[in-house]
Amino acid sequence: MHIYELDTPSVVIDVDVLEKNINDMADHCKNLGITLRGHTKSHKNPEIAKMQVAAGSKGIVCQKLGDAENMARAGLDDILMTYNIVGNQKVRRLVNLAGFRRMTVTVDSLAVAAGISEQAATEGVTIGVLVEFDSGGNRTGVQSPAAAEELGKQIQQLPGLKLRGLMTYPSQISSKRLVDETIDRFKKANLPLDIISGGGTGEEWESKELGFTEHRSGSYVYEGLSRIKGAGDGSDLSPERCPLRVVTTIVSVPTSDRLIVDAGMKTFRLFPSMPYGLILDDPELKFSGMSVEHGHIDSTGTNRKFSVGDKLTVIPTYQEGVTNLHDEIVWIRNDQVEHVWRNEGRGKVK
Amino acid sequence: MHIYELDTPSVVIDVDVLEKNINDMADHCKNLGITLRGHTKSHKNPEIAKMQVAAGSKGIVCQKLGDAENMARAGLDDILMTYNIVGNQKVRRLVNLAGFRRMTVTVDSLAVAAGISEQAATEGVTIGVLVEFDSGGNRTGVQSPAAAEELGKQIQQLPGLKLRGLMTYPSQISSKRLVDETIDRFKKANLPLDIISGGGTGEEWESKELGFTEHRSGSYVYEGLSRIKGAGDGSDLSPERCPLRVVTTIVSVPTSDRLIVDAGMKTFRLFPSMPYGLILDDPELKFSGMSVEHGHIDSTGTNRKFSVGDKLTVIPTYQEGVTNLHDEIVWIRNDQVEHVWRNEGRGKVK
Repeated sequence: MHIYELDTPSVVIDVDVLEKNINDMADHCKNLGITLRGHTKSHKNPEIAKMQVAAGSKGIVCQKLGDAENMARAGLDDILMTYNIVGNQKVRRLVNLAGFRRMTVTVDSLAVAAGISEQAATEGVTIGVLVEFDSGGNRTGVQSPAAAEELGKQIQQLPGLKLRGLMTYPSQISSKRLVDETIDRFKKANLPLDIISGGGTGEEWESKELGFTEHRSGSYVYEGLSRIKGAGDGSDLSPERCPLRVVTTIVSVPTSDRLIVDAGMKTFRLFPSMPYGLILDDPELKFSGMSVEHGHIDSTGTNRKFSVGDKLTVIPTYQEGVTNLHDEIVWIRNDQVEHVWRNEGRGKVK
Repeated sequence: MHIYELDTPSVVIDVDVLEKNINDMADHCKNLGITLRGHTKSHKNPEIAKMQVAAGSKGIVCQKLGDAENMARAGLDDILMTYNIVGNQKVRRLVNLAGFRRMTVTVDSLAVAAGISEQAATEGVTIGVLVEFDSGGNRTGVQSPAAAEELGKQIQQLPGLKLRGLMTYPSQISSKRLVDETIDRFKKANLPLDIISGGGTGEEWESKELGFTEHRSGSYVYEGLSRIKGAGDGSDLSPERCPLRVVTTIVSVPTSDRLIVDAGMKTFRLFPSMPYGLILDDPELKFSGMSVEHGHIDSTGTNRKFSVGDKLTVIPTYQEGVTNLHDEIVWIRNDQVEHVWRNEGRGKVK
């Protein structure tokens, strides 16, 4: 079945491109000599996570427990959660997961560590822990090397937890002094450094330079080499690089310079200051705007005539955001449907 | 159960506020003397649609067939679809719906009308049709009064269709001349005008002034009177007006001026140039940014101390967008949980 026989709007993944992106990143990390840990947050899809692992990803990373549960049920193991797990309900789920999968979490406060320790000790499981330090991301993470050391020492006193090392995001050369001092303090205090985890697609080299033991990348799966190359402004959208596409139908041609398609803001998700996407059928067609359920296309630039019922394929700019809107993703090769994936991970924000 | 016992992030609806918004809009339209047809696209929730009908909405409006199917299954009737239904798969679904519900659709081209007519006639059902004309929305709709008349006449020749009148969006006084001429042409050609449908929350008065028979409003359900009053810049977010809220947990307090919560871009949905939302627990807390799964809050403005594990309730600015991200919506009154609604309409873009 050709993708243009699908009811629309449909979200499709070109599996050949997906495989190439996954293999390219695995090769990139092998060449650099840094261990890759594939992040799954962009796709939340165990089938893709297994492809990442098969290509060389050592374990996986999840951001939310719902993702980790989904991955664990599908057979994935060695799951790092780069998220402070807070509250009884969440800690109980983490402890359940640790009963049948190797779980490591990051923490940036004693409050978070103590909450996890209490239930883990009661249930008799051990959860690996990395101390998250803020190397310039200005989000989570302890604020100094001394604070990292102190939290590390406190974690070592807590039952049910096994300190394994350090984690930060993103990996930036500009924070080398801070990184060095944090690692030094851990070394001098005889705190474990089995894992020093950096992250961010496109910053694999930085993690290597900073002396990290592994690097977490995720968005490369959808965005191909764009992030690795550092472009990422939407100008490098191409079918060779971007496996995720949206198939739409033209539902109105009200004027000679305007096409209206059946995919709007509930199908696409915009990224600030980026273009809406690339229309593969005719790159001279440009999105001029979007309503909630309609896409508005300016056809001034093309001589081709389009009619109601014609299909168009769009590479959306913010591919992770689009994935998170749809319950089904269609796997394709050469524009032929392979199978329909039920997007179970979608919406798992808890 | 108090909302702060919910696992987070959770999306909740304050039913008292919801009811007030629904009743206020019904009263507003009664006072103006215009028939209200409640749009369901913001919530996609049959329970809320039934509340709209109970308050006085004459039938409902849906934008996508998946919504209409969801509503029809739940017992809603007299469904107007303000959308060009294009393609065999979609027309088949429309014809199925017309077998057990009164269905009216809008069309803006002979191609769309002919596609529907063919299957409707074959199946022996009749589908009501309004001609959509463009009164300045620059989206769909025929481009002139003459084109509206011509399409109306063509529709009258097509089996399986019953022309019922006209439709436009939005309702603007500035297009009064065009509207008058379009209606005149329909009258002089003896084309039916049982329905002349205008739309847009906050433009009820305009529809009345333009001589329309009904007005389609939808976002009032979530956004209260903000749109009626024409503000809508986020400055008028308030718990008295906005029933939809997001309950989050603080997962990190890395510095004295920064709180990080467990709700980011996959929980919220931003609207260009609008603030992220209003934090009810302390309006001096301001969102400074969002990562995919973290919300960043600037706590500079407050003297209150917050800790890891504390909960915060946020009124999101773009409430329709938030609803469309979550599989469950929790119904509450006075911050107590009433029941959990499975958000079946979410993601129905087909």
